[in-house]
Parts: sequence; C-alpha cells; structure tokens
Amino acid sequence: MMRDELQARVDGCPLHRLLGLTVEDCDGSGMVTISLTARPDFSRHDERIELHGGIIATLIDVTGAYAVVTKLGQNVPTINLSVDYLRFARGEKLVATARLVKCGRSIAVVDIEVGDETGTLVAIGRGTFSSAVQAATPA
Amino acid sequence: MMRDELQARVDGCPLHRLLGLTVEDCDGSGMVTISLTARPDFSRHDERIELHGGIIATLIDVTGAYAVVTKLGQNVPTINLSVDYLRFARGEKLVATARLVKCGRSIAVVDIEVGDETGTLVAIGRGTFSSAVQAATPA
Amino acid sequence: MMRDELQARVDGCPLHRLLGLTVEDCDGSGMVTISLTARPDFSRHDERIELHGGIIATLIDVTGAYAVVTKLGQNVPTINLSVDYLRFARGEKLVATARLVKCGRSIAVVDIEVGDETGTLVAIGRGTFSSAVQAATPA
Amino acid sequence: MMRDELQARVDGCPLHRLLGLTVEDCDGSGMVTISLTARPDFSRHDERIELHGGIIATLIDVTGAYAVVTKLGQNVPTINLSVDYLRFARGEKLVATARLVKCGRSIAVVDIEVGDETGTLVAIGRGTFSSAVQAATPA
Repeated sequence: MMRDELQARVDGCPLHRLLGLTVEDCDGSGMVTISLTARPDFSRHDERIELHGGIIATLIDVTGAYAVVTKLGQNVPTINLSVDYLRFARGEKLVATARLVKCGRSIAVVDIEVGDETGTLVAIGRGTFSSAVQAATPA
Repeated sequence: MMRDELQARVDGCPLHRLLGLTVEDCDGSGMVTISLTARPDFSRHDERIELHGGIIATLIDVTGAYAVVTKLGQNVPTINLSVDYLRFARGEKLVATARLVKCGRSIAVVDIEVGDETGTLVAIGRGTFSSAVQAATPA
Repeated sequence: MMRDELQARVDGCPLHRLLGLTVEDCDGSGMVTISLTARPDFSRHDERIELHGGIIATLIDVTGAYAVVTKLGQNVPTINLSVDYLRFARGEKLVATARLVKCGRSIAVVDIEVGDETGTLVAIGRGTFSSAVQAATPA
Repeated sequence: MMRDELQARVDGCPLHRLLGLTVEDCDGSGMVTISLTARPDFSRHDERIELHGGIIATLIDVTGAYAVVTKLGQNVPTINLSVDYLRFARGEKLVATARLVKCGRSIAVVDIEVGDETGTLVAIGRGTFSSAVQAATPA
C-alpha cells in the first residue's frame, strides 16, 4: 500500500479527520509513520499546549493498526493497547512510527514510538490487533 | 471532592470540553463515573456511529486519573495505561467507572470499566498514575 | 470441570509441580483460585522470604489460563500478560483468584488478583488468552 | 557495573540460583543480556521441553530490572510488567536483552526482547520500575 492510498484510508474515518492525521511514510510491510499537528483543543490545559494523553494514545492506536492494515489490506480491530508516557508533549507536532513485530494467523503485535518534532521520545506504545481474515467484529 | 467541583475541574481541560464529558458520580475516595455522548465525528467510520478506540482509551485515561485526583486533590500524570477492547461501542453513550486499587506514596493504580448505556461492558482499562506530592512533571 | 479434575490437569505440567500449586476452588465457568506455598528458593533474597515477582507473574499466568481452560476444556496459549505489583509478598502463601471477563470466538480476557494468606492484595494481573478451537500453537 | 559484578548480584537471589541465570553481557548504562538454559522442569508439559510462560515472564522481569540496576547501582522494585508471547520457546536456551528506554527521577521504563538460541524472537516485554533513590519498598 502506497502513502496516498493509506492517507485516503486514514481519512475515511471521521475521528481521524477531526484529529487531522497525516501519513508521513509507509513501506507496505509493517512500517508506518503518521503525524498530528497540535491544536489548543487537544491540550491538557488552557495555559499552553501540552497534548493530552488521550490524543497520544489515539495516535498510537491508529498508527499501530495501520501498520497491520498495510500488511494485510484489511481493517483490524484492536484487541489490546498499552501506552507508557515518558515526557509531556509540548511541541507543535507529534510523529508516531509503528513497526510490525509479529503478524500471525490471528494476532498481530506492533510497537509504536511517539516523538515530538525535535525527535524527542514522548511515549511508547504496544498493541495487539486481530489479524484473522475478515475479523470484522471484535475477537 | 463533590460532583460539581469535579465537573468544574474536568471542564478546565480543553480536550475534555471538546469531548463533552459529564461527571455522573464520585465518592471522594477513589470511585468516579464519567460519561461521554457519542457523536458522528468520534466514530470509526461514516456508515454509523461506532466509537473509535482512541475515544474509549481517552475516556479510560481521564476517568482513571480523576479517581486519583478526587483522593489526592491534585492533578496526576499518567505513567502507564492499558486497554482491553471487548466489544464495539455502538450505543449513544459510554459510561466509564474507575476504582482506585492502590494509592501509594508515589504510585496509584486504578481499574476502569467502560460500558454502553445498556450496561454492556465494552472495554476495561488499567492505569498507573504518579501520586507523588506535586508531581507536576512526568516521573 | 471439578476441583480434582483441574488439580490433575495443573499437575500435568512440570513447572507447576516444581512450584507446588494447589487448586483451592473453581466453579467451572471461569472462576479459579490457585494457591502457592512460599519457599526460600522462591524468594527475592536470602535474608527472608519475599516472593520473587517472577513467581507472582507465573501464578497469575497459570491461574488466568485455567480460568479459560475450565470454561473451554482445552489448553489455551497466553497471548499477553500484564502484572501490577502492589506490595511485597512476605506471607507464607499466595492465593490467586481469576475471573473470566470475556470468552469470545478467538480471544479470552481474564482478571487475576493475588493476595497473601491474610487476604491483603499483593498484585493484580490481566491476561489475554487464545480461545480459538484447537489453538495448539501461538496465534 | 561489569559483567562479573552483575553476575554476583544476580546470584545473590535464591530464585535466580534456582533458575540458573547467566549474565552474557552488560554495558553499564542500561543494556543487559541474561540467558537461561532450558530444563525439563521448566517446561509446559512432559512430552518435550517448551519453556513455560512464567519462566519467560520471570526472565523478562529480571533482565529488565537489572538494566536499571546497572544504571543506578541499587535494587529496583518492579511496578508493572507486560509480556507479549510470540512463539513457543522450544530451544535449549533463552536469551533476554533489556534496553533502558527512560530512567527518570522516580520511574524507569525498560524494553526486553527474548529470543531462543537461534535468535528467533519468542516474546517481548516492557517493564516499569521504581528508580527513586532508596525505593526499598513498593511505591
């Protein structure tokens, strides 16, 4: 799957359009980079922009899922997601890169790193996704 | 902390206002219930409303954090968050209930359940939060 | 599955015999209680017995898996396991109770609590297991 | 901390001696490799040696903790541990390598990979440890 094709698929989801996600890169075999531009209403407080942990978790979930999607060509439900928050996200942009660790008959495992625009690591995530053929509903 | 006071604190965060969170209940000692009303732009796709996993993760993070906040009276950074998705969230409303499992000198652990408006369990989450006094920055 | 039948199955595994696990209770529909007696060589140090975190994680994994086994009647590979350690385990006995949260077509989710013999909570765990029919190999 | 010094520290724990852990490598700044030799009583069943998930989780916990220990020079309690099991561990040896992702004032985060003796990835783990000075008791 090429970058433009993946961007179209990402934009097919209402929440992704609300967040404004940009596919920066993808290699068609499990590596995907997606970025998000900070906005005041994504922040943890009114004083300044520090991206809310929920925004970071969402970006991790989305980027991880598309790592599997680019490999399998079908949407994949998330089974389990975990996020470790390392630093506050104060920059203007978040960049998440996902790497497919395993893509088995029924389970895919993905590692996701989130950095700010200087490349400083802000959070790391790990997701388990259903990779079963036509897993249209939760497993 | 009373329900009205907690609602005011929840509303002090821009992302919470964007999502439209309602404090349904809190007992001041670690139990908090917060609800979210489904909207088309929170959905996974355009055909119908199925709440995106990122919205569910965000609700879990927020509800878990406020379980600690009502106990300690100060904001708490999330250290770690994990979510298990059980069923698609097709209802008009999500209701998350958090229960404080431990509130130690530096770490608090919270269990969070998310159900739809019929009470069917949609996801379960578990969070670790920094409970150190004045943990204004990530641990 | 009755208690004696489950005990025989537990004892069919070499590591379980090494650890000395006792099935205390099971209801055949996803609730299982298994205990372990502390031994000096299961400890974190030589000064006194504090059960090692790996022993606690193992007990959580085993008890969670058998919660699914008693429901399905077949062995289930662990997909994902997470443990939150709450207190040091200084007692003579650990008691783990598992509760089946979901048992779907391919994924089962289980919550596990571990207490000492006074009932004080020592750790909590959550596991995802493969519930697919004949999942003899990892998913 | 040098390899011999770390081996002596590892051997100071009764469970580590029971398991027979060998420090293969450490760089003193958060990278540690520890191996374990398979034994029949560490297996999941009697037919052949497939290392039990609890043994794998224990090796992940230990290797992750020592990644922090080599950095800080003091023992560190595990706060949270998660393990994703990728394949059955059928080889004669397991090799775990830990990499320190963050070492903050109170929290350290470590990634751990476990492979068999052919280098095939068997499981991945992630741990949160207490890095506070003199965190002699759980946080």
